[in-house]
Amino acid sequence: MSENHAHCGVTKTLKVIGSKWTLHVLHLLFDGTKRFGELQRALKGISPKTLSVRLRELEHQGLLKKKVYPVVPLRVEYTLTSKGKSLKGMFKKMGEWGEKTN
Amino acid sequence: MSENHAHCGVTKTLKVIGSKWTLHVLHLLFDGTKRFGELQRALKGISPKTLSVRLRELEHQGLLKKKVYPVVPLRVEYTLTSKGKSLKGMFKKMGEWGEKTN
Repeated sequence: MSENHAHCGVTKTLKVIGSKWTLHVLHLLFDGTKRFGELQRALKGISPKTLSVRLRELEHQGLLKKKVYPVVPLRVEYTLTSKGKSLKGMFKKMGEWGEKTN
Repeated sequence: MSENHAHCGVTKTLKVIGSKWTLHVLHLLFDGTKRFGELQRALKGISPKTLSVRLRELEHQGLLKKKVYPVVPLRVEYTLTSKGKSLKGMFKKMGEWGEKTN
């Protein structure tokens, strides 16, 4: 990859959100706070392990926050942070393209 | 996934471009026509098999066209179609986010 390419904004964005499922997870969270089980059911085909890894990555990147409620069974909720919500413009473009093109 | 979610534009877009590597491949082709080997070198870590599958999917979706030159060794080039180029607005948003955020 050329130096220009490696340092451009798109490449930086893809480093953060370019993994499989990541965009799907973020898209679901734009609807509002979701529990782990809700995300898993919505993302048909994702393994609990992969979902955990993706959620942890997104939390480390500061795109979502996790809240654990000390109840039995444990209740864990995920919500977009303001950094996560700042991807709204990109998702808007994705939505427009999907409506127009497919 | 709710009915609304399944039919919204973002979901449609993610069905077309949501696989691992797909956005990276498209991003490289926005720079101009690329040979198979150039893409493989730029996408460190991708296997030739996966790259072939992704390119075939993108060709079937009408986002790129493939041109084969009957020389030895075979030369194969990939170029964005106008449908592929219509993703420019989304990539622009990705670039802006990457520059601003990371």
